[in-house]
Amino acid sequence: MDPLSQTFAALADPTRRALLAKLSKGEASVTELAEPFLREMSLPAITKHLKVLEKSGLITKTRDAQWRRCKVNGEGMKDATEWLEQYRVFWEESLDRLGDYLKTVTSNASKKGKPHAKTKQ
Amino acid sequence: MDPLSQTFAALADPTRRALLAKLSKGEASVTELAEPFLREMSLPAITKHLKVLEKSGLITKTRDAQWRRCKVNGEGMKDATEWLEQYRVFWEESLDRLGDYLKTVTSNASKKGKPHAKTKQ
Repeated sequence: MDPLSQTFAALADPTRRALLAKLSKGEASVTELAEPFLREMSLPAITKHLKVLEKSGLITKTRDAQWRRCKVNGEGMKDATEWLEQYRVFWEESLDRLGDYLKTVTSNASKKGKPHAKTKQ
Repeated sequence: MDPLSQTFAALADPTRRALLAKLSKGEASVTELAEPFLREMSLPAITKHLKVLEKSGLITKTRDAQWRRCKVNGEGMKDATEWLEQYRVFWEESLDRLGDYLKTVTSNASKKGKPHAKTKQ
């Protein structure tokens, strides 16, 4: 799988995004990371999710004495974010169109003197 | 599947991203969109990819007389982009660290008077 597809595939899971959100607050050990999820899933399931994140370059693992610590690898998200950023114009355009539409509606309504569209001066 | 996972899963495929890239240049019919891909895959395969994009809200299809036209739905990418944007600080930090490191290296090298690190004045 190409790197960009691998990044998006890794992000396509709510548990993996929750693990990243937790790591965005700071480095953590696998045990610390797994703790809030252990009611819903097993430790091997969490470990598997962490491996997907590591393989796709979204996190890095370091071995510090007997502890394994995980941290976010920002670089791994850069290409995905930049790919999506190209499309920003599409939603900003639609917000602009909504803005224009609302302006037209309120202006037409105030011309007709409708009380519910009264503009404050 | 939750909407954000669905968006990321839809983006985790190079053909679907290529279809979106083509649509970012303007609306197109399914035939126009499929044309450059038909050497590598069948029309039903393309149609399936377009269905994934439509289901995840990344494109919309309109029926205009006998033609079906597709266009990018920017709103569908907004949440995914905003989710990733939270992590911008992580790669910008690592770029800052690289910048600091390069400053230290060039400054140490110029102190030692190494010719390859000569600074232009």
